[in-house]
Amino acid sequence: MNAKPLQPSADFDVQRIRRDFPLLARTVHGKPLVYFDNANTSQKPLQVIEAVDNHYREHNANVARAVHQLGEEATAAYENARDKLATFINAGSREDVVLTSGTTQSMNLVAYSYALPRLKPGDAILTTVMEHHANIVPWQLVAARSGATVKAAPIDQRGELIVEKFFDMLTPEVKLACVTHVSNVLGTVNPVRDIARECRRRGIPLLVDGSQALPHRPVDVQALGCDFYALTGHKMLAPTGTGVLWAKREHLQAMPPFFGGGEMIREVRFDGTTFAEPPHKFEAGTPNIAGFAGVGAAIDYYQSLGFSAIRAWEHELLIYATERLREIPGLRIFGEAAEKEPVISFLIEGAQATDMATLLDLEGVAVRSGHHCAHPLMQFYGVPATLRASLAFYNTREEVDAFVAALLKVRKLLM
Amino acid sequence: MNAKPLQPSADFDVQRIRRDFPLLARTVHGKPLVYFDNANTSQKPLQVIEAVDNHYREHNANVARAVHQLGEEATAAYENARDKLATFINAGSREDVVLTSGTTQSMNLVAYSYALPRLKPGDAILTTVMEHHANIVPWQLVAARSGATVKAAPIDQRGELIVEKFFDMLTPEVKLACVTHVSNVLGTVNPVRDIARECRRRGIPLLVDGSQALPHRPVDVQALGCDFYALTGHKMLAPTGTGVLWAKREHLQAMPPFFGGGEMIREVRFDGTTFAEPPHKFEAGTPNIAGFAGVGAAIDYYQSLGFSAIRAWEHELLIYATERLREIPGLRIFGEAAEKEPVISFLIEGAQATDMATLLDLEGVAVRSGHHCAHPLMQFYGVPATLRASLAFYNTREEVDAFVAALLKVRKLLM
Repeated sequence: MNAKPLQPSADFDVQRIRRDFPLLARTVHGKPLVYFDNANTSQKPLQVIEAVDNHYREHNANVARAVHQLGEEATAAYENARDKLATFINAGSREDVVLTSGTTQSMNLVAYSYALPRLKPGDAILTTVMEHHANIVPWQLVAARSGATVKAAPIDQRGELIVEKFFDMLTPEVKLACVTHVSNVLGTVNPVRDIARECRRRGIPLLVDGSQALPHRPVDVQALGCDFYALTGHKMLAPTGTGVLWAKREHLQAMPPFFGGGEMIREVRFDGTTFAEPPHKFEAGTPNIAGFAGVGAAIDYYQSLGFSAIRAWEHELLIYATERLREIPGLRIFGEAAEKEPVISFLIEGAQATDMATLLDLEGVAVRSGHHCAHPLMQFYGVPATLRASLAFYNTREEVDAFVAALLKVRKLLM
Repeated sequence: MNAKPLQPSADFDVQRIRRDFPLLARTVHGKPLVYFDNANTSQKPLQVIEAVDNHYREHNANVARAVHQLGEEATAAYENARDKLATFINAGSREDVVLTSGTTQSMNLVAYSYALPRLKPGDAILTTVMEHHANIVPWQLVAARSGATVKAAPIDQRGELIVEKFFDMLTPEVKLACVTHVSNVLGTVNPVRDIARECRRRGIPLLVDGSQALPHRPVDVQALGCDFYALTGHKMLAPTGTGVLWAKREHLQAMPPFFGGGEMIREVRFDGTTFAEPPHKFEAGTPNIAGFAGVGAAIDYYQSLGFSAIRAWEHELLIYATERLREIPGLRIFGEAAEKEPVISFLIEGAQATDMATLLDLEGVAVRSGHHCAHPLMQFYGVPATLRASLAFYNTREEVDAFVAALLKVRKLLM
């Protein structure tokens, strides 16, 4: 882990920022809430909540289907979100930004429309042991339908991908490589640029699961050099039910449509239907318009703070929380990568993760316990579950202290 | 069309109801808004807007993944929506209610998980000429992948399905029949019970597209006797990005999963993954939690008014609007079924639909012009487009008058 904060964070006014997040003022079981489950879903600033609210009060209509004023306003809200997303991830073109219901739909779109038509018996998809189920199961489903297999590159005990092994496994039968940008359990940041370079050298397309990256760091999909980048809105301040698949133009053009329905067609006839150009080819049906109005506000919010300030503060919190946790006897941290985001998985010897999470909740502390949708990673570490504290820029050192105090109290109860 | 309202509507206080819908107070181009584009998307009552807002302010967390209090509250909001939906459509069991992002996802789920694995070359899917693209294109996509074909049963000039022809076309190679409950263009109500009975007699499963039904009438999926029923939230007062697939238990159990990802699995291993039971098997990834909090509020709202009052008022409006439109010289109505919901498609001789819609917008009147995602129906009538006025229970006779006055003015401009 980075030994020092990236820059001084003295002017990061976290108390002012917290006032933008109404839920953070809540109490739980009579205690002030300490929300350390941000990798599960982020809280939403007023700016996002109000964007959704305002959309329904003032601008609600369907998109791209009506010439009336409301329809134009709703279409503008939706398409402005695409523009902002395109700038936010440096998409190159807004037309390479497919709006989805979340990372899961983005991944399954690639699975069904890119992978499935190409896979033959004997082919393989390469992923890693540290992946979220969303970056494993879609590949298994299409592999099962096509006679292909799914291979997983190993990690080391620190929770880092063994990159040379990953490269060794990029054999000619691999038709798609899939890796997470940031591990949802370990916080590990994978060297996506290096991986992309090697994949390009071998002519193997690379998909990156960015679900856990964008809440913490700026992403430039073109600089990364990958072929597909999936992300989800609800982990980055935006409403539930929103996501993105960015892909290189050549892939989007070559891929057949996935969902059939309204607005993804050019002409429908029973003797032969023709389809719209990307991205609309992949956006059948009425999308989550109000949700994307919120996505636009979420991006504005990130940009108003700036990622350099966000990262500095989050890394300060990560270092502080890691130090404080190391004071606790019998506490084992899973994930000690040289580069990691503020996600700390851990167990305390002699205590079950779920018991601990339940008791921590009574102290107002929200952490996740369980397998974190990453069974193979749990199998690798030989544990059924971990506790996971995942931080966001609106968290504070005082919350870390409250969390550690609660942990010590709960530990005593369970010992 | 029913000649008389279903019951007196004197005690239907539409002005009080309108105060629940903030958007209806808007002006457009300086004129009071007349929102007659309800079949495209409905407006939302304060109760729904506030349910979403309140969810983000007070209860936001991910579902089914965390033991903490917020996680339980979010899960309750999401699963309560499922309970309410199950009661609302008389699902039989909450476990037969799969929550989706909308009708389009519901249809494509059936296409990819039910139809595709079963279809063989020579098989067919039967649909009708009056369908929305969402009830045509998914079948075309999976037919193309499997060597099957899509057949369309004809309609008559009044816009009614020719039921005997539909039955004639239910030949043994038909593996799935698909029909809309209510036409989005014509308002036609199809005799779904009769169709379901005949399908059952022949052992052919029936899917019903309920997108345009539930805004107007109570639906009892068990009484209808169909196998699959798809609906969308955003047309029935609820947020965008919400929908349902109801299916008979035997189908949900037999169907392989569609999307792979979090929460749809029992155990993920690289040597063999096992899946959760329905409905969770079909709900990979973080759903539109806040959206479903709004779905719960939308159902409460419908139930507070009662469908008998809603239907009586809407039919009074439909009769009145139809009579008033018939006063206009050269106006042709498409869709004169004996039983129809308050959707009126029309053209005025000598005027283009889009020109009219654009000019109507300047008068504050929002109607849809175009093909309404129903190209084959436009081909049947030999027109490229129609104008469509689609009404909701919060519309008024005065709005009908304003609409007709605007039409007359616009007609004069274009003649």
